[in-house]
Amino acid sequence: MSKAEKTREFIIEKTAPVFNKKGFAGTSLSDITRVTGLTKGAIYGNFKNKDDIALAVFDYNVQQVFMIASSPGDNGKSAVDRLVAIANQYKDQFAGIARNGGCPILNAAVEADDELPVLKEAVKKRIASWKDGFVQIILQGIRGGEIKKHVDPDRYAGIFIALFEGGMMLSKTMGDPVYFHQSLDKMIEIVYTELKII
Amino acid sequence: MSKAEKTREFIIEKTAPVFNKKGFAGTSLSDITRVTGLTKGAIYGNFKNKDDIALAVFDYNVQQVFMIASSPGDNGKSAVDRLVAIANQYKDQFAGIARNGGCPILNAAVEADDELPVLKEAVKKRIASWKDGFVQIILQGIRGGEIKKHVDPDRYAGIFIALFEGGMMLSKTMGDPVYFHQSLDKMIEIVYTELKII
Repeated sequence: MSKAEKTREFIIEKTAPVFNKKGFAGTSLSDITRVTGLTKGAIYGNFKNKDDIALAVFDYNVQQVFMIASSPGDNGKSAVDRLVAIANQYKDQFAGIARNGGCPILNAAVEADDELPVLKEAVKKRIASWKDGFVQIILQGIRGGEIKKHVDPDRYAGIFIALFEGGMMLSKTMGDPVYFHQSLDKMIEIVYTELKII
Repeated sequence: MSKAEKTREFIIEKTAPVFNKKGFAGTSLSDITRVTGLTKGAIYGNFKNKDDIALAVFDYNVQQVFMIASSPGDNGKSAVDRLVAIANQYKDQFAGIARNGGCPILNAAVEADDELPVLKEAVKKRIASWKDGFVQIILQGIRGGEIKKHVDPDRYAGIFIALFEGGMMLSKTMGDPVYFHQSLDKMIEIVYTELKII
């Protein structure tokens, strides 16, 4: 890594929780200089503008959360086991996600949907690829004879993400992990009772 | 209504969609003077500060959305019919809610959870009362012999709100009502298959 790349990486890591907690509009240049200890000049030597930092930080934050659900042993697992493992891994990591400001996709989606077209496009891509991840697992399960043939992968992928994000919002706001746990337990119940061939 | 009350009401109505779309941090005093056509002095003659406007606007926006689900004929309906009617009313009104910036509870929750304690308290109260609304309908259904006795009203109320808000976020961001519709159809399916005594 070049020195410039290292500085860029340093700025992203330091400002990641700030953007995720305060939002794009709520994060000021002085927040950025304060948490990095760098001058305005040093920041803008590495990023074109605040949009540029926000997009890099958004990608970084999403990767941190997506990493939770990807484990090296995944390919050996059945589709049903993978869906259940993802839900359980997120349940286990709720406290850490909440401490960093919650789900970056939810945060950026709600802030960007009406007002920030550049960030909104980045959010849409991440949601589409997250959804596609679920769709591919469900299709794998259908092909493997584990999941019922009539199951609509798109519909269930959307419902799983809705439960995840709705539960996250409730638990973050109410200060109680129970909502997130109950929502992901509902996802697991759906996998066993509606998707899985018994 | 006194003249002062009318002006206050006027400021709330005019700034309501702006706060809901741009968020609290994203709404500037110049946005407020622009949409109202009033001076800074006139605004602060009616509200102590931006927090004071934001709280009044939040209450107004929530009432607008909650009104969708309350219909005068409610008391004659069975609990199951009321739950299904609420889901269907929201589905029908998705376009209007989206046009005004989406669900004000979701928007304020995500923005306030880490950074705005005053607004966060207001959001928590609204979520608690929304949840209690579902709990009371489910309890009515249990007492009336319509809904299964072992059903946990708190759990289902949380899952219904998670589906609503998660579906709202997805549909708003992806620009496609299908997610919101599928999430609320899932709520209706849960009411018929898990709550209702057949």
